[in-house]
Amino acid sequence: MFVIAVYDVDTAKNREVLTFLRTHMNWVQNSVFEGELTKSELRTVKDELDNIATAGDSVIIYTLGSRDYVQKDIIGTEKGDTSRIV
Amino acid sequence: MFVIAVYDVDTAKNREVLTFLRTHMNWVQNSVFEGELTKSELRTVKDELDNIATAGDSVIIYTLGSRDYVQKDIIGTEKGDTSRIV
Repeated sequence: MFVIAVYDVDTAKNREVLTFLRTHMNWVQNSVFEGELTKSELRTVKDELDNIATAGDSVIIYTLGSRDYVQKDIIGTEKGDTSRIV
Repeated sequence: MFVIAVYDVDTAKNREVLTFLRTHMNWVQNSVFEGELTKSELRTVKDELDNIATAGDSVIIYTLGSRDYVQKDIIGTEKGDTSRIV
């Protein structure tokens, strides 16, 4: 499935979330990742983010059955390298 | 259509993007908006963001035919009020 993760966490946790998500997904721009994940990988990602996030932190996971369900338009500069999955 | 907008722009432009997007979409969390937009509204949003964004700025617009195509999971705290559309 195609997954978009956006996070808004305490500054002290930014690097931890960034480093973790990099191991499973592709960095798109500040606080945004995309990836094709299996159900099992998605479970791992959610569980770990649930461990990291505490009150006041927010991570949103948008899950789509397929990348084909979404059109992606970039205005300005494309920052991330998502060539593997787009 | 259901639209998710994420932005990563120069700090000086953050407020301008925030203020503009608030007039068309719902704030979800830092640098993330969601909304049900018509084609015409989406055109307006893209055009205005295109006006604001310059080199180094990045705005990504994910467009889905329907909100039903995406599952949304929130880990931690729900920051925005998207009750109108979720």
